[in-house]
Amino acid sequence: MTAPPPPTPYLRVDLDRLRRNVRRTADWAAQHGVALRPHVKTHKSPEIARLQLAEGAAGISVATLGEAEVFVQHGCDDLFVAYPVHVDERSAERLRSLAERARVAIGVDSVDAAARAGLHLAPYGVEVLVEVDSGHHRTGCPPEEAGAVAVAAAHAGLTVRGVFTFPGHSYAPDGGRAAAAAGEARALTTARAAVEQEGLEVPVVSGGSTPSLADLDTGVLTEARPGVYVFGDAQQWELGAMPPESVALTCRATVVSLAGGRVVLDAGSKALGADRAAYSTGAGRLLDHPDARIVQLSEHHAVVDLAGAPLPRLGDQLDVVPNHCCSAVNLADDLWVEEDDALRPWPVAARGRNG
Amino acid sequence: MTAPPPPTPYLRVDLDRLRRNVRRTADWAAQHGVALRPHVKTHKSPEIARLQLAEGAAGISVATLGEAEVFVQHGCDDLFVAYPVHVDERSAERLRSLAERARVAIGVDSVDAAARAGLHLAPYGVEVLVEVDSGHHRTGCPPEEAGAVAVAAAHAGLTVRGVFTFPGHSYAPDGGRAAAAAGEARALTTARAAVEQEGLEVPVVSGGSTPSLADLDTGVLTEARPGVYVFGDAQQWELGAMPPESVALTCRATVVSLAGGRVVLDAGSKALGADRAAYSTGAGRLLDHPDARIVQLSEHHAVVDLAGAPLPRLGDQLDVVPNHCCSAVNLADDLWVEEDDALRPWPVAARGRNG
Repeated sequence: MTAPPPPTPYLRVDLDRLRRNVRRTADWAAQHGVALRPHVKTHKSPEIARLQLAEGAAGISVATLGEAEVFVQHGCDDLFVAYPVHVDERSAERLRSLAERARVAIGVDSVDAAARAGLHLAPYGVEVLVEVDSGHHRTGCPPEEAGAVAVAAAHAGLTVRGVFTFPGHSYAPDGGRAAAAAGEARALTTARAAVEQEGLEVPVVSGGSTPSLADLDTGVLTEARPGVYVFGDAQQWELGAMPPESVALTCRATVVSLAGGRVVLDAGSKALGADRAAYSTGAGRLLDHPDARIVQLSEHHAVVDLAGAPLPRLGDQLDVVPNHCCSAVNLADDLWVEEDDALRPWPVAARGRNG
Repeated sequence: MTAPPPPTPYLRVDLDRLRRNVRRTADWAAQHGVALRPHVKTHKSPEIARLQLAEGAAGISVATLGEAEVFVQHGCDDLFVAYPVHVDERSAERLRSLAERARVAIGVDSVDAAARAGLHLAPYGVEVLVEVDSGHHRTGCPPEEAGAVAVAAAHAGLTVRGVFTFPGHSYAPDGGRAAAAAGEARALTTARAAVEQEGLEVPVVSGGSTPSLADLDTGVLTEARPGVYVFGDAQQWELGAMPPESVALTCRATVVSLAGGRVVLDAGSKALGADRAAYSTGAGRLLDHPDARIVQLSEHHAVVDLAGAPLPRLGDQLDVVPNHCCSAVNLADDLWVEEDDALRPWPVAARGRNG
């Protein structure tokens, strides 16, 4: 189905670029003997998950049970909820229902959580991976404690699939990416050894973020879970992890004001997201004006410094590269996919499924 | 209809507090002889718009034509699109359709935009207000140019209802709010005089943001358009514009990890929004722990510094106050409204209607 474009601001996907991005990372994984389990929180789109699986992805990663439910409904049959899900009566019921239709694993990062997961889930085939902290200091136990958590899970009757981490500190400029990848390799090596020391096998050692892919120690990891690589965004561009030529997602915006000499677009934080990392040079970039910056962002306005480029006219449309594609996608009901000069909507089927 | 609470993270509304907030500002407007035209972009909820109208609001303000369409569908019959809408064939058709069912006005901030609006809309009863810049430096012409813009609109056959501004620079700590309110009064006084000098009447002088309400010059304004006052948020709390006792919107979140001594909640930027103003002390606050701060925010994680309060247990639920309520609401499909210990969902009917 093709359709006329919606009113701006709306998200466009360049399908050629998207396919190239999916294939490039699939090829990288195949070359390095690493299973690719892409994180679909980035796109929340069953169509894009299908592209990834068709190119050889081993399964998908999701962040929430709500996302898992949507993707199972759309036929995905191997999902890792890469999150320390709090298992209580209600979430256990949802997990059991998922496990009837798909291969499902969740994260655990403490002895308590492992015991609790076992109590509710042991007979139902839900597996666990132990999450370890590799330097991002968010969730995840210290790597040397992974053995104790794995033992608790095994004692509670769960199958321990392995260990995982998210090297979120790879979102750093300059040498930060390589340092994060090294920290990730160290943490996962320690965690693996700690689990094996308890006499348990570790079939899966899972890590990887888009910025750290190039520096990943493929001798350590058996599985990678990048998400953002399908689209790219201004963060990847500014980190040097993906060039603007690979950016497959933009927000089409209209020039609504030139008053006072300012160029103002109708794409605000409600379309782009308000993410602004410490290293970001603005609130978003323009695909066709690499020197331009969004210098002020409100809910429905982006004030652009065009860096000396000729002023557009009122009503002109420009393509904005959001700082963080995951946030922009999570604001939209549809992605408008461009192929052969036609547009068609792909639903962001798991949008808002945060719980 | 009442319902069991959804999985966390989800947005809760304290209906008593919401009603008090609505009434307090309605009383303020009545006392000062200022018409209240609340900005519904904050809540996007027909139920809350009805509360505001029942308390005497003169009409509503919206940011987009999509929002206008939703609220007209729900019976609102007097809307101001407080935005310099780019009027072309498609948006004109939508505006004409709206004007058949409601009293509708839009913003214009240049002679070009005024002429273009007249070309498409003159015979259809859509009125205009001239937007002026009162120091926020976003959209809006310089106040002294308001006369020329108004004349262009009138010559193009449009009814000019008046002038308006948004003092967004009132979102500033310390003396910033009062300074912004003073700048707003100056700009609107200049703009009004500039329009009157052209022999045009100025029935409406519209301004006002939640932080600047207390300092508003009610001798200058005939209409105020605050939005955030219905809910409050961490920004208003930190600006000193609304106390935590007035915060009516929170995100209920679950403690999912205590690994490494960190308290991690499942409310991330996809539930709270990623807004973080320069004056913000963190990525969100906890309603029951005023000294606590969210010190790290990812899409599905909030790392909390509890400032010495006793550690919660895994699975405990806490109420997070988002930094910016408009952003949090725009991420949710429903608000869960609490009254008499029961919860019922109010749809965020205009969510995602950005264009």
